[in-house]
Amino acid sequence: MSAFQVPLGDMRFLMDEVFDYPAHYASLSAGGEASPDVVAAILEACARYSESVLWPLDAVGDREACVLDGDQVRTPSGFRAAYQQFVDDGWQTLSFPTEYGGQGLPMSLNLLKTEVMGAANWAFTMYPGLSIGCISTLLKYGSESIRQRFLPKLVSGEWTGTMCLTEPQCGSDLGQIRTTARLAANGQYALSGTKIFISSGDHDLAANIVHIVLARLPDAPPGTRGISLFVVPKFKVDETGAEQRRNGVHCRAIEHKMGIAGNATAMLQFEEAQGELVGEPNKGLEAMFTFMNIARIGTAIQGVAHAERAFQVSLSYATERRSMRALSGKKEPGEAADALIWHPDVRRMLLTQQAIAEGGRAMVYGAAKIADRMFEAERKGELDLAASLDGELGFYTPILKGFLTELGVEAASLAVQVHGGHGYIRDLGVEQILRDARIATIYEGTTGIQALDLLGRKVLLGTRGACVRDFTHAMWTEAKRDLLAGGAAGRQARALVLRALEWNVVTLRLMLRARRDREAVGAAGYDYLMYSGYLMMAHHWALMARKARIALGKPDPAQPRSFHESKLQTAEFFFERLLPRADAHRRAMLAPLASLMQRAPGRA
Amino acid sequence: MSAFQVPLGDMRFLMDEVFDYPAHYASLSAGGEASPDVVAAILEACARYSESVLWPLDAVGDREACVLDGDQVRTPSGFRAAYQQFVDDGWQTLSFPTEYGGQGLPMSLNLLKTEVMGAANWAFTMYPGLSIGCISTLLKYGSESIRQRFLPKLVSGEWTGTMCLTEPQCGSDLGQIRTTARLAANGQYALSGTKIFISSGDHDLAANIVHIVLARLPDAPPGTRGISLFVVPKFKVDETGAEQRRNGVHCRAIEHKMGIAGNATAMLQFEEAQGELVGEPNKGLEAMFTFMNIARIGTAIQGVAHAERAFQVSLSYATERRSMRALSGKKEPGEAADALIWHPDVRRMLLTQQAIAEGGRAMVYGAAKIADRMFEAERKGELDLAASLDGELGFYTPILKGFLTELGVEAASLAVQVHGGHGYIRDLGVEQILRDARIATIYEGTTGIQALDLLGRKVLLGTRGACVRDFTHAMWTEAKRDLLAGGAAGRQARALVLRALEWNVVTLRLMLRARRDREAVGAAGYDYLMYSGYLMMAHHWALMARKARIALGKPDPAQPRSFHESKLQTAEFFFERLLPRADAHRRAMLAPLASLMQRAPGRA
Repeated sequence: MSAFQVPLGDMRFLMDEVFDYPAHYASLSAGGEASPDVVAAILEACARYSESVLWPLDAVGDREACVLDGDQVRTPSGFRAAYQQFVDDGWQTLSFPTEYGGQGLPMSLNLLKTEVMGAANWAFTMYPGLSIGCISTLLKYGSESIRQRFLPKLVSGEWTGTMCLTEPQCGSDLGQIRTTARLAANGQYALSGTKIFISSGDHDLAANIVHIVLARLPDAPPGTRGISLFVVPKFKVDETGAEQRRNGVHCRAIEHKMGIAGNATAMLQFEEAQGELVGEPNKGLEAMFTFMNIARIGTAIQGVAHAERAFQVSLSYATERRSMRALSGKKEPGEAADALIWHPDVRRMLLTQQAIAEGGRAMVYGAAKIADRMFEAERKGELDLAASLDGELGFYTPILKGFLTELGVEAASLAVQVHGGHGYIRDLGVEQILRDARIATIYEGTTGIQALDLLGRKVLLGTRGACVRDFTHAMWTEAKRDLLAGGAAGRQARALVLRALEWNVVTLRLMLRARRDREAVGAAGYDYLMYSGYLMMAHHWALMARKARIALGKPDPAQPRSFHESKLQTAEFFFERLLPRADAHRRAMLAPLASLMQRAPGRA
Repeated sequence: MSAFQVPLGDMRFLMDEVFDYPAHYASLSAGGEASPDVVAAILEACARYSESVLWPLDAVGDREACVLDGDQVRTPSGFRAAYQQFVDDGWQTLSFPTEYGGQGLPMSLNLLKTEVMGAANWAFTMYPGLSIGCISTLLKYGSESIRQRFLPKLVSGEWTGTMCLTEPQCGSDLGQIRTTARLAANGQYALSGTKIFISSGDHDLAANIVHIVLARLPDAPPGTRGISLFVVPKFKVDETGAEQRRNGVHCRAIEHKMGIAGNATAMLQFEEAQGELVGEPNKGLEAMFTFMNIARIGTAIQGVAHAERAFQVSLSYATERRSMRALSGKKEPGEAADALIWHPDVRRMLLTQQAIAEGGRAMVYGAAKIADRMFEAERKGELDLAASLDGELGFYTPILKGFLTELGVEAASLAVQVHGGHGYIRDLGVEQILRDARIATIYEGTTGIQALDLLGRKVLLGTRGACVRDFTHAMWTEAKRDLLAGGAAGRQARALVLRALEWNVVTLRLMLRARRDREAVGAAGYDYLMYSGYLMMAHHWALMARKARIALGKPDPAQPRSFHESKLQTAEFFFERLLPRADAHRRAMLAPLASLMQRAPGRA
């Protein structure tokens, strides 16, 4: 298999030409340090580390997997050294506040880093990745004492964190949580219960693991209004923040999974484990929601990362492997056959992967800017602005998480297909991409949950369609510049103007239907999410195509034209061959409810 | 995980109500024995064996996988005993000629058997399954001596067979084959070369393995016109048909694959292996094509089998697992939460699986009748009729193989999704369905190869669109009966009439385009195949719905109504929520070629 290469050129294109990150960073108080030189140096160092250290361990992680030894998880060979280097190089500190040892850089850099490292080795990247939710929770809801004792080592990466939500009887439905927390004699809480599917739940990479645990106080009301948050470290932490004796939390099993085998998915048993309350009693779920956008964008990135990997291995194989002659005549007469890449159907698969990887990356980079501005507003105490930006981000989030992970699985499956039988063989590492990618539509909220969040919570209840109006207004504003242009530019602009209108119309129709029938949201949600994803990605492809045309208009002899020409082609491909899928989703979401709801599926 | 249950009710519905198999069998000379009672007894015995013997070994096969010990493959525990029972019960003999020990029953019964056994354990079913191609080749092209010595033991199942096509440098592109055969002193041939990806290529189930090998004679012309067929047994066979000394064919490696781990995918080294020519020199590829339809329908069945398994486990889990409340209010107030099946998005996933499994099964049962009639015509020497039926079957074949395996993977992936995190864990066996299903779009000709076969070979070159006209005429003839009906029947009929017209129009447009640009076939092929699949499946769903309405119209107190009501609902679901995907494929296939072909995909 070809070596993984971080797509720095595409990243620079998005930062410099499409989204003007230099100006964006200059506008942030946290962005002072993020000068173009510094950002370039960070991304290049990140690329070197990912390509040379993380990527070679990706296959090792899959082959060896994690092993449970007593109640201690051993990570695959090389993971410890790689993690130590991660800590030494300060990768965890990037976007966290300087007062806890962070570098105070914008959050977007952390998201960019996640894609680069995640594409190289997603299972590894999840270890420090899970810390982010833990750190964000403690930053916002932890008491002064908790913050002082836990954050410096979490931010440095010396410790890692987890989020303990799922229990055997409930995943998405957190109202069913049974883990209990009772006030103990020492003023702390004693937690008891079983948590399953805890990503990075135990390992040998860090001196301590800090669990954020959802549990119930003895007098808690039933359901989701009775859930509180606790911080429960694997090793107890004294007043100075030093780790001490073992706490009553034990890894009882790790799961054997389809993929991401290098990351330990732990069953954790809490046996009177000592914990501290984080935030208000019974307000745990609300607290969880405050950083859910960032966590979900982090998972959306998995779709992009695996699409990128899938595209790279497929492109390389299609260039080298020869099979049959092109229908229009020999392309490589000196060879036994033409390379796969000459065959139109192989190009269709490659361009589908490229459209997903690059289109998805653009969506993430767009959302990451909003996240930066939201954190900036929060930091400055501009709460109305922060809330408005949080709303904007909250519209992107389920679309990015749901749509990009679904398409990431498609891109990964196409990599297997491009490789034919060789893609199905484990040694080559292609099928691992599909196995690893497959989890992304499930954890951090399944696609179905994202769909309910988007259509029910964000679009209909939360804003009565305003978030669609705002986004489509931006689509329309961009598109109308090229409305009368010739060629692909004009065709794409006109398509987008019509799609912007259509998106509002279908939203209104679903709003009216949901008033009559509450099940309408669930019945239309998935197709509405996918429809929204295709339209949002179309907008981003049009943005990229416009910038590519500008770049090609002022020829720079120093830069090859092929990069921007490829952008134009992929944009055309997306509009002509992938965007039509939006119509299938539109028709499905507007179908009557009866065929879904008249009776439960079954045979007898 | 819930136990697998053979869908005998659905099979009976198709045989008795939709396709009138009793009358069909009565019309065949080979069908004399296949009275309704006999067929019922066969299918029930097949179901018992599949449920009680094969299904429990499916997980074992995945866990243990095959092991190479020296040059001998050991199959997973229990496979030997199961195979012995398969032989003892005469399952291999079903559809083969009585003169070689077969039961002489119609070929369709073999296809039905394949789905039943394959759904229980696809990896196992491939061992006897690969024999079918070998037996068919020898029946048609083997000399009298070869037939007498090899067929009785292949037909009984005492020996198994393989097809050795792929080599390291070529899969689909058989013109690149390098394995050589030279005439030896004893009048036999000595074969040398390496074959890879040989399914069932070595194992410990049978006393001998008979390889059909594609190789080149010394004076063979280059490319596909220089390929000959040879029969090369693992143990040499004397004049009486008894096995003797080991032949020079050795298993050098077996592949570690994403799935179907219970089936050995062998690398076979031929070292001056003794073989006999089958058929004419240099006519090997043409001989291969004569039974390719049946082999490909056999693989298409994998899509149906895995969709069935996926549907069953999902339905069972969705009925038992409780999560959240229905949006329209509590459905099971006595429980902590409502069962998954109350949620519309879960129903969408279940109905998608059901539509694929049952719609795909109907397509297979329809095609199987044509296969029976073709074999009947061949047997009677009615060569024109046989050729015409072969052409009809040849139109179905790439659609069934390409479309049903693609949808089988989708149904399997939805099973993972319905199970959430539990679907991603290996213990439960759900993700195995996806891993096993994933190969089906690759072997026996990738979807891209099927697409070229359909649009290039069958539709445009072979019949200039006549096969589409014939099929759509049948669609139209059926649909017009309900054209003025109210409700779903009328809506479906009117949709089909328009689709029948549309299918011809797009075919004509592609024909005109292909005259101008040879690459048009490759560029449109995949989307044309998927489009054709959705339309063909729509026709079959309409057929089933019509029969279900008839059954519901004459109430039979002995039969519950729910089976037929479920058919009507699933048909509606298919027309409203899956058939619209055909439009996305139609638009994609008619898109200009430029976005695919203007330049090779890439970034630099």
